[in-house]
Amino acid sequence: MSEYRLKRRVQFSETDLAGFVHFSWFFRYMEEAEHSLWREAGLSIVPSNPAIGFPRLATSFEYFRPLTFEDEFDICIRIAEITDKTMSYKCLLTKDDEKVAAGTLTMACVQRLPDGKMTMISIPEGIRSRFEVVTDMND
Amino acid sequence: MSEYRLKRRVQFSETDLAGFVHFSWFFRYMEEAEHSLWREAGLSIVPSNPAIGFPRLATSFEYFRPLTFEDEFDICIRIAEITDKTMSYKCLLTKDDEKVAAGTLTMACVQRLPDGKMTMISIPEGIRSRFEVVTDMND
Amino acid sequence: MSEYRLKRRVQFSETDLAGFVHFSWFFRYMEEAEHSLWREAGLSIVPSNPAIGFPRLATSFEYFRPLTFEDEFDICIRIAEITDKTMSYKCLLTKDDEKVAAGTLTMACVQRLPDGKMTMISIPEGIRSRFEVVTDMND
Amino acid sequence: MSEYRLKRRVQFSETDLAGFVHFSWFFRYMEEAEHSLWREAGLSIVPSNPAIGFPRLATSFEYFRPLTFEDEFDICIRIAEITDKTMSYKCLLTKDDEKVAAGTLTMACVQRLPDGKMTMISIPEGIRSRFEVVTDMND
Repeated sequence: MSEYRLKRRVQFSETDLAGFVHFSWFFRYMEEAEHSLWREAGLSIVPSNPAIGFPRLATSFEYFRPLTFEDEFDICIRIAEITDKTMSYKCLLTKDDEKVAAGTLTMACVQRLPDGKMTMISIPEGIRSRFEVVTDMND
Repeated sequence: MSEYRLKRRVQFSETDLAGFVHFSWFFRYMEEAEHSLWREAGLSIVPSNPAIGFPRLATSFEYFRPLTFEDEFDICIRIAEITDKTMSYKCLLTKDDEKVAAGTLTMACVQRLPDGKMTMISIPEGIRSRFEVVTDMND
Repeated sequence: MSEYRLKRRVQFSETDLAGFVHFSWFFRYMEEAEHSLWREAGLSIVPSNPAIGFPRLATSFEYFRPLTFEDEFDICIRIAEITDKTMSYKCLLTKDDEKVAAGTLTMACVQRLPDGKMTMISIPEGIRSRFEVVTDMND
Repeated sequence: MSEYRLKRRVQFSETDLAGFVHFSWFFRYMEEAEHSLWREAGLSIVPSNPAIGFPRLATSFEYFRPLTFEDEFDICIRIAEITDKTMSYKCLLTKDDEKVAAGTLTMACVQRLPDGKMTMISIPEGIRSRFEVVTDMND
């Protein structure tokens, strides 16, 4: 798996008094698509081994057009890079084929140590093998 | 401890396109006051013993006046009832001494069993002893 | 229209540190079903006439079982009562035919006056005529 | 005004099942500090003229350490750049003087046209004159 496309509708509680979706919601939209990609790959971002997790290292969004209540839009998430311990996505939101917003997300694979601290570890092979970087990011 | 009063300001992301605070946010306001009450009593609603928790059994709100961006308001939470395994609160939100909303919340003390299920248990004495029911709810 | 059934999956950002869906989210689930019911009736809860709105008067939830990440569940919302100026719903959440939570929601039809205040008005006939109370609430 | 510092405590509903604050919440923390900065400057980000608004063009966060329930932390927001029609902030979250996360936010001043579209306009002088870029971003 290297990408996933999801249709979504704006809910009332996602809007703010300006009448549009609050800018923080785009990060939740991106994450919904990420977890759908994992499910499509037969995985869960919450692994059965509770000592392993995938915290976020960095994320961003650029906004081109607002979304408003009941708008239907598309979320496309793609794997942009995989390293030994991290994975990065690019995400594009569109409505009627017009660009709405573009996001990035980088996360790490970590293990929780007995003292509660976290240390970055190699992505387990059973997870790593299900994903690959998209061949043409400009598609 | 039997009550706690908290000042709070409406944040932008708590409003919706109608221009007012979304009705679901009042439950988070009430919970912020509940957890402040527990801190004031020297406790945390997330106990050091991770096998014990306080899930919600029932909650409600009645709405009298809307709140909007940057409004300052008061939250007063009071303990209305304590039973062996449950505790119930009443919560009143006011702005400039006018009633905004009135809520209720009942929660139980539970223990997580090894199979992941939860069973209601008596509220531990170290917690029970810190709280008491308000003497005059009409105050 | 008198009822609507919606399938929904728990998203990661809807969970809290206890590992379950935060209790405030159930009110957003209920509202998603309400707005789906209105769309199914050919309407939008945000009418083209911006002077009319549908603020909430009262709402409640009882919780029977927790929901956790990636759970699929069903939301059934039904119209329990229609008066001249208000409408009330009952809402049942189930997972694999087991009761998860039961909610209620009452909202009013209001008009915004030129001074910004709101006054309750009769539900417009074009809206009122699309809905009816469910005949058997015990179904 | 060129910066604002805010103390904040992590609320229960801001955590997710991993036990830490969900990454989308940092954008709301940054926005709370932004609006506090505006209030400190005698302004509101929601101006009395409803035709003017300040939508976001771009935002980002880098995460260094997790935050968990009841953590107290500091938010420092600083104005990094002001152009004719835009303003950019840098934001640093710290806990006990350790870096937690670093964010950026760029917003534009827009006017809503009669057809509902938005066009970027110069920041009004009454607003522009209250803010200035911090002199030493490395402070």
